[in-house]
Amino acid sequence: MTDTLTRPETATDRIVLGPNQYGKAEVRVVKVTRDSDRHEIEDLSVSSQLRGDFAAAHLAGDNGHVVPTDTQKNTVFAFARAGIGSPEQFLLRLSDHFTSSFDWVQGGRWSAESYAWERISVDGQGHDHSFVRKGQETRTALVVADGAARHVIAGLTGLTVLKTTESGFAGYPKDRYTTLPETADRILATDVTARWRYVEGARDLDFNALYDDVKRLLLEEFTQRYSAALQTTMFDMGRRVLEAHPEIAEIRMSLPNNHHFVVDLTQFDLDNPNEVFFAADRPYGLIEASISREGQAEVPQAWEAATSFC
Amino acid sequence: MTDTLTRPETATDRIVLGPNQYGKAEVRVVKVTRDSDRHEIEDLSVSSQLRGDFAAAHLAGDNGHVVPTDTQKNTVFAFARAGIGSPEQFLLRLSDHFTSSFDWVQGGRWSAESYAWERISVDGQGHDHSFVRKGQETRTALVVADGAARHVIAGLTGLTVLKTTESGFAGYPKDRYTTLPETADRILATDVTARWRYVEGARDLDFNALYDDVKRLLLEEFTQRYSAALQTTMFDMGRRVLEAHPEIAEIRMSLPNNHHFVVDLTQFDLDNPNEVFFAADRPYGLIEASISREGQAEVPQAWEAATSFC
Amino acid sequence: MTDTLTRPETATDRIVLGPNQYGKAEVRVVKVTRDSDRHEIEDLSVSSQLRGDFAAAHLAGDNGHVVPTDTQKNTVFAFARAGIGSPEQFLLRLSDHFTSSFDWVQGGRWSAESYAWERISVDGQGHDHSFVRKGQETRTALVVADGAARHVIAGLTGLTVLKTTESGFAGYPKDRYTTLPETADRILATDVTARWRYVEGARDLDFNALYDDVKRLLLEEFTQRYSAALQTTMFDMGRRVLEAHPEIAEIRMSLPNNHHFVVDLTQFDLDNPNEVFFAADRPYGLIEASISREGQAEVPQAWEAATSFC
Amino acid sequence: MTDTLTRPETATDRIVLGPNQYGKAEVRVVKVTRDSDRHEIEDLSVSSQLRGDFAAAHLAGDNGHVVPTDTQKNTVFAFARAGIGSPEQFLLRLSDHFTSSFDWVQGGRWSAESYAWERISVDGQGHDHSFVRKGQETRTALVVADGAARHVIAGLTGLTVLKTTESGFAGYPKDRYTTLPETADRILATDVTARWRYVEGARDLDFNALYDDVKRLLLEEFTQRYSAALQTTMFDMGRRVLEAHPEIAEIRMSLPNNHHFVVDLTQFDLDNPNEVFFAADRPYGLIEASISREGQAEVPQAWEAATSFC
Repeated sequence: MTDTLTRPETATDRIVLGPNQYGKAEVRVVKVTRDSDRHEIEDLSVSSQLRGDFAAAHLAGDNGHVVPTDTQKNTVFAFARAGIGSPEQFLLRLSDHFTSSFDWVQGGRWSAESYAWERISVDGQGHDHSFVRKGQETRTALVVADGAARHVIAGLTGLTVLKTTESGFAGYPKDRYTTLPETADRILATDVTARWRYVEGARDLDFNALYDDVKRLLLEEFTQRYSAALQTTMFDMGRRVLEAHPEIAEIRMSLPNNHHFVVDLTQFDLDNPNEVFFAADRPYGLIEASISREGQAEVPQAWEAATSFC
Repeated sequence: MTDTLTRPETATDRIVLGPNQYGKAEVRVVKVTRDSDRHEIEDLSVSSQLRGDFAAAHLAGDNGHVVPTDTQKNTVFAFARAGIGSPEQFLLRLSDHFTSSFDWVQGGRWSAESYAWERISVDGQGHDHSFVRKGQETRTALVVADGAARHVIAGLTGLTVLKTTESGFAGYPKDRYTTLPETADRILATDVTARWRYVEGARDLDFNALYDDVKRLLLEEFTQRYSAALQTTMFDMGRRVLEAHPEIAEIRMSLPNNHHFVVDLTQFDLDNPNEVFFAADRPYGLIEASISREGQAEVPQAWEAATSFC
Repeated sequence: MTDTLTRPETATDRIVLGPNQYGKAEVRVVKVTRDSDRHEIEDLSVSSQLRGDFAAAHLAGDNGHVVPTDTQKNTVFAFARAGIGSPEQFLLRLSDHFTSSFDWVQGGRWSAESYAWERISVDGQGHDHSFVRKGQETRTALVVADGAARHVIAGLTGLTVLKTTESGFAGYPKDRYTTLPETADRILATDVTARWRYVEGARDLDFNALYDDVKRLLLEEFTQRYSAALQTTMFDMGRRVLEAHPEIAEIRMSLPNNHHFVVDLTQFDLDNPNEVFFAADRPYGLIEASISREGQAEVPQAWEAATSFC
Repeated sequence: MTDTLTRPETATDRIVLGPNQYGKAEVRVVKVTRDSDRHEIEDLSVSSQLRGDFAAAHLAGDNGHVVPTDTQKNTVFAFARAGIGSPEQFLLRLSDHFTSSFDWVQGGRWSAESYAWERISVDGQGHDHSFVRKGQETRTALVVADGAARHVIAGLTGLTVLKTTESGFAGYPKDRYTTLPETADRILATDVTARWRYVEGARDLDFNALYDDVKRLLLEEFTQRYSAALQTTMFDMGRRVLEAHPEIAEIRMSLPNNHHFVVDLTQFDLDNPNEVFFAADRPYGLIEASISREGQAEVPQAWEAATSFC
């Protein structure tokens, strides 16, 4: 078989391997803690990807460094035996394991989605071992290892919010393609996707409590003040989080503007004082920004690893 | 253009039009009630389909009876101006409108998904005009008109529940293809899709309150007793609903068995006393049944209209 | 454990079990035939559901009749060892196996999606063992067993077609909610979902060749003539299939009207002679009908099993 | 309204706006060219996002620079009037328009998905104006404007390929979590997502012909040689593209390893010489790399814009 792996050297001398990573994606692990009759449940979809010296696999079919993705999956399950704790801490443990176990693994990315459950209420009491998926937003977590450094990025996606008034859009530039009328009263609706990066070196934070509080602040700030544009409201939401939490260095958001168009009912001899709306799917506005703490060093390699590879 | 519509009579004399329906699907209407500073929001995706004498359109390209699907959409928006109330009552009004407005419309199906919102909490108070999508199950509603009759079917989908213990599966028949070991302690998890049919003639019920109570009963009953099989638990859930609500004639459920496999950690020198599970996607068990009140006449045309056309 | 399964008889005497079925859904089986260097591939997602006497499981937690869904899955894989042949024939074999192996299994439904692959072309030749997913429509198949009877329903879904002209919509009734202008030149676009039922007793047909020909006829007929409405075109497509194939008793279609709206470019001082369109997602028209051979007995239990349970 | 926009200066002096962009996403434009009876169709979903000086909108609710996303949408439709040509050239025209029309727009990202149609065949001839969606991969295109520079990145996603033999995985490191057996004969299957970056300054290329040839090369190379790992095959695929096309500076791929597990049929007294496989969904391997031309300058800002924002 070996000879089938030989590559013509003349062909490779100009084509080179650049950034690369590999691993196992979407390992769905459910951890039940049953120390007492009152069970606890943690529900994660974990992805593990390694970075380091894997050139021989790409260039020569030599798998001597390729820790199998199947092994990465097994490791996720094995590590869950000792408990999850928080997604961030679970991913930190995984990152330490892989970078310390294999010399040629110099870094990687470990990410998780987690799904919240709440106890089913029976006679006003939360049940001991029966749960219903909360089903609101999905929590996300990401740890990027870059040598000894650890970048921890928490987040959420799919948190759908809407305000029925106190939002408008006016004062914008007009050109020959502009047909949008100005408005001082519209619906503002979006699905919040946010990621926040903790300050460097943060490992021993109470990530679960921080998550809950950031979610609370994002929701609360969304309700505040008249919204002159989704940009303004987004910035305010981010600023509020950063002001409340010095542990957080930066927050990024990607917010679709979920358009709700007032239906013209005059054609049916009806008025419509902003009461009946058509909620459109596509196209939609898309507003994205980073809001950060001044003087906090940029960490581009953290974001480069946080986003899609291509 | 007329001659292009002529069909060779010799060809059609043996091929006939059977059951048919048409309309507009997934009209997303958001109704804001702003009688006071404390706004209310209703959020529905409505589908309208007419049944009746539409043969000329199919056979001869004659649209004289074809109420445009665009008109059906407009009607949904116009009717929303006077308020939704409950999805069921909104659909009943639509069904009455179409069957009374056009002689040749003898029936139809009107269905809706609705999405629950809750007020964003600020300082422990629900905000007046800012909301977050609840995001748990989707509520469904269906009205089938068949001449003067109205069949009302309410439902929900995507209600994900799980119990970490008090579930097993044993005593089943074995054949040469059986490899499943018996168990007296497993995770039981499913995504509840349920539809319940109200007794004939029900029009003036408090459908919103009924919905909330049926959801509560389904959740509560899921927690009860040891589950010998998903079938048993499903039947109990349905029976509980029927026992509590004489307004309901029948309930149907479609429950995937969301398998959670205990991971074998002994290969890593770890025990696993039902604490670490792999949650699989596909394949999955699928358990479906109707549970009904004896002596309550079957209404097959209601279910035929409730399900997918083909 | 037994006593936990006891049900209060007083509660059950009025609540009864109705239609029910259960099994394993979406078993993804890939069969490679490698008799020679030129491999063949069949790729199916199979669902198996049994019907019969399963009341004890629902009512009393007695699994004595419950052939595990896991066993049904194993059987699918084991039966694939001898080859698939066609989805319809594979499902017929499964239906015969289950109804003959277990006295209390009186029927069931076996369905499949199948995914087409084509050989990757290298130097104009199809490769022996490398394939690319064709990726166009998904083929569907369904066998319903009802005692000794077998109903065979073939189909396809996701076949997206469009004609850029020779379509209009006019002559429809107007009411106060009508705003749609008539047109004699529009885009007609739809995603074809079709299912056709073979005549009773059909078992030894060349289902693969029939499938290919039905797809060809549906596509060809879509192109023919001026379309006065999607209804007319749909009926013609169905009629064409029935005229060509006496083995087919009935065909049902569910066709969304994928609206393409002409963009008003006059506001930008541009004309738009039906060249630039906005393709909308939702809402959409939805046109559904059965087209059948006169005198061919209706088989409602076949369609009831073909569609969603609730 | 102005005073509601005032922000407390003391709060903002430490929180700053970082990278940001905004626009309209997923504008679905269908362009029909009907110069003759033989129509042509182009079908794109276009997203437009602007970068530049938008701080006032974020910080002070001042929309003076905010070209509405609605205007961006209108511009897409208006520009389509003159034809698409290729997605890349259409996006280049959009990028030139926005950066030259508004002083404060210093760059942006314009991306498109495009969907291929083929003529419906009637009597062996492609029809003049009736089409069927090809339905295989989705073509992607991206133009990043950064001042005067234009980075052009083409790509595809959803190209599903499989080889039934000539693939293995062996020689990998083992640790306490390794359970995977080595194999010299397995199925190799993946869904190709690739993006390739054209050399700087490329504007007048025949992007459509290049697309077709890159797709052909990726498919062909996938078939070649024994695959010692997906990494090796991926590198070879990329190298082949770069060797054939000096216009391309770099190619990135993200390849899931779509696991096909051999089913153990011995438990049913059947052999299984790599003929019956279970195709799993999740988890899956995920292999990602950049392959580039040595000496070709890295262009990180192009990739940063190509990937998801957060």
